Amino acid sequence: MVKARNLKDYRKIVGKAVMDEIYSKAEKFSDKHIVCISSTYQGGGVAELLNNLVFLFDEIGIDFGWRILHGSPDFFGVTKKFHNALQGENINLSDRKKELYCETNRRFSTFTHLCNQHTHHDLVIVHDPQPLPLINFYKKKQPWIFRLHIDVSHPNLKVWNYLKPFIEKYDSLVISKEEYRKNLSIPQNIIYPAIDPLSQKNRFLSEKAVDRILGKFGIRDNKPIISQVSRFDKWKDPIGVIKIFEYVRKRVNCQLILLGSLATDDPEGQALFKKVERKAEKSKYKRDIKVILVENEALVNALQRASSVVIQKSIREGFGLTVSEALFKGTPVVASKVGGIPLQVIDSENGYLHEPNDIKGFGESVIKLLKDEVLRTQFGSKGYLHVKDNFLITRLLLDWLNLFEKYIK
Amino acid sequence: MVKARNLKDYRKIVGKAVMDEIYSKAEKFSDKHIVCISSTYQGGGVAELLNNLVFLFDEIGIDFGWRILHGSPDFFGVTKKFHNALQGENINLSDRKKELYCETNRRFSTFTHLCNQHTHHDLVIVHDPQPLPLINFYKKKQPWIFRLHIDVSHPNLKVWNYLKPFIEKYDSLVISKEEYRKNLSIPQNIIYPAIDPLSQKNRFLSEKAVDRILGKFGIRDNKPIISQVSRFDKWKDPIGVIKIFEYVRKRVNCQLILLGSLATDDPEGQALFKKVERKAEKSKYKRDIKVILVENEALVNALQRASSVVIQKSIREGFGLTVSEALFKGTPVVASKVGGIPLQVIDSENGYLHEPNDIKGFGESVIKLLKDEVLRTQFGSKGYLHVKDNFLITRLLLDWLNLFEKYIK
Repeated sequence: MVKARNLKDYRKIVGKAVMDEIYSKAEKFSDKHIVCISSTYQGGGVAELLNNLVFLFDEIGIDFGWRILHGSPDFFGVTKKFHNALQGENINLSDRKKELYCETNRRFSTFTHLCNQHTHHDLVIVHDPQPLPLINFYKKKQPWIFRLHIDVSHPNLKVWNYLKPFIEKYDSLVISKEEYRKNLSIPQNIIYPAIDPLSQKNRFLSEKAVDRILGKFGIRDNKPIISQVSRFDKWKDPIGVIKIFEYVRKRVNCQLILLGSLATDDPEGQALFKKVERKAEKSKYKRDIKVILVENEALVNALQRASSVVIQKSIREGFGLTVSEALFKGTPVVASKVGGIPLQVIDSENGYLHEPNDIKGFGESVIKLLKDEVLRTQFGSKGYLHVKDNFLITRLLLDWLNLFEKYIK
Repeated sequence: MVKARNLKDYRKIVGKAVMDEIYSKAEKFSDKHIVCISSTYQGGGVAELLNNLVFLFDEIGIDFGWRILHGSPDFFGVTKKFHNALQGENINLSDRKKELYCETNRRFSTFTHLCNQHTHHDLVIVHDPQPLPLINFYKKKQPWIFRLHIDVSHPNLKVWNYLKPFIEKYDSLVISKEEYRKNLSIPQNIIYPAIDPLSQKNRFLSEKAVDRILGKFGIRDNKPIISQVSRFDKWKDPIGVIKIFEYVRKRVNCQLILLGSLATDDPEGQALFKKVERKAEKSKYKRDIKVILVENEALVNALQRASSVVIQKSIREGFGLTVSEALFKGTPVVASKVGGIPLQVIDSENGYLHEPNDIKGFGESVIKLLKDEVLRTQFGSKGYLHVKDNFLITRLLLDWLNLFEKYIK
């Protein structure tokens, strides 16, 4: 059950000055109507971010709407291929794919009235490529912002060149990191994602509560826990995590928990989950590996707190909210040096960074942390502070309000 | 790929008079703004109905919006229990369930602005119990209609009495059948559901196209096909269909295809699908049974056309669109005498009706039809005409327009 939160509770964490600034900026937009569109409300970082953000916009008195694109499994098959290609994979960019992509958006536009004689929005924000072509199907009567959460530092050029003209119809592109900046005719703004310190996933849990929740899912705290929490997605490389674990387990007695859910806009998840289960089943250390498919925020919270080390072995990672989640809970993170992760993990300060394919490097860092409780505690407190100062949702809210100032007259 | 349809194509099927009436009624609402809210856009009859209907409203010039309630898996677990209880099952109606039910709707209302200083809707239509409590979280500035698609002839009274006060806040309840009428303080209107003759699922397919599509899914037309097309849901009793098939197969050489998908608002589907697979695997006739889990409209279309007999062995059935789908394709239907099915299947005219638990009765009717091609053809053409006259979406559209006349000033 999601308890209704109160803005006052954020003040305790981030201080009065931040909250005052939020209120004073929000006031300018109290008579405005904003809408965002994304492709799922469940599973993955974007959905989570929006779930938290829309609540806060409402709390500060802004009419901020959220709509979900309606897509068929075929459509999400195509957009997942686009997503993979934006992260560097090859693609057969057929006319059928392009047609399904545009036609799904056109259809959605027919029953989604952003601006008719009875409805006005002062700003439209579109998240990620699935609903990107929507802009083609409206008479543009307000600024439109395209918010891209993906690591587009090395995109497949066929797909990038196909999507670019859609993006350039927008008034601005918002990306998660300076390095994702592209050669475009429109302004580009950078907003780091953020976590909500009061969500079920991140709010404080007592040790007793942690034990109780883990127990419910059959997790015993009888040996140190290493974990990765991520959607079952090849870009998160759960198979690689098992390899790291095998390297570590040969040398130190510990257990691995892989916890994740599926997203309605990712049709590849189910197959990968099964592959991970098989890989775990075949491992010499299978008794010490648990693969859990469930959407449960309290469990994520408890697991990140109970873990001695959290791994994030992504091959590409737009930002990687799970990294900040773990750091915020005082748990050191050993992660890949890709995408938005180095913004969060400061090497040898609050965790360790490695090249994604460096199993041994990952393994040695995990072992080092497992063997040294003092180091873990030091890293943990630095990680907490780093996230508190940089990656909390109140900062994100301010970034958006600053952007609204630029675009809403 | 869903091809853009054209209203002219409907004229060919239902005639000019019907289309003229639709246009003339629609004109009255060309400056109105209507919105409907349901719990999923994918899987199951309601989603399908709305997918077709919203397209037609747009075509006739009415701004008709469609929003999807955002619910967690836990929430849909609770609402599925409500659904089951409305169809007669027992339920533990705990405070936790009620709280999650209301709180999910409250949260949705915070980012769904049906009526603020920038948005006005002239009518709000809410489909089924999942978003029912929404009405509590708005200042009601327009008529609200609650459209209930479920067979509520024998509801569990605990749940009915809990939901009733929500329903009575609406201006009207729309049900699918006279027999579902309840003792309520608000007016009740009856609208039969309908199928879209031009959708992928129902449009004409040549025999060649049917063969090609079946072939893609490994279905061979080498012996007569019996099929049931339904979401994997215990209320559709797929296990019972296998029992009927075993009865038939002992006497006549034929094959069974069970085809269905899952809906995002039904968490029980996956487990039932596995149960059905196991049941088929254990059958003496397992080589002649195929259980297919896929969302593919063309396959449904082809299968209903290729089947000698279609079964609909539902235990409860609000309406049962798949029955009209099969009849419209000239295929006789052997079905349960429950819910909306007897509106569609006229016993001994276009199919046969039996009590849901009468395996032998079902089996004998299927055998009779399998053995008599002339009878199948007679039943088939009567079935087609019955659906054409009563259960096409153009009639549904007119029913809604007539209802709008009552409620929109």
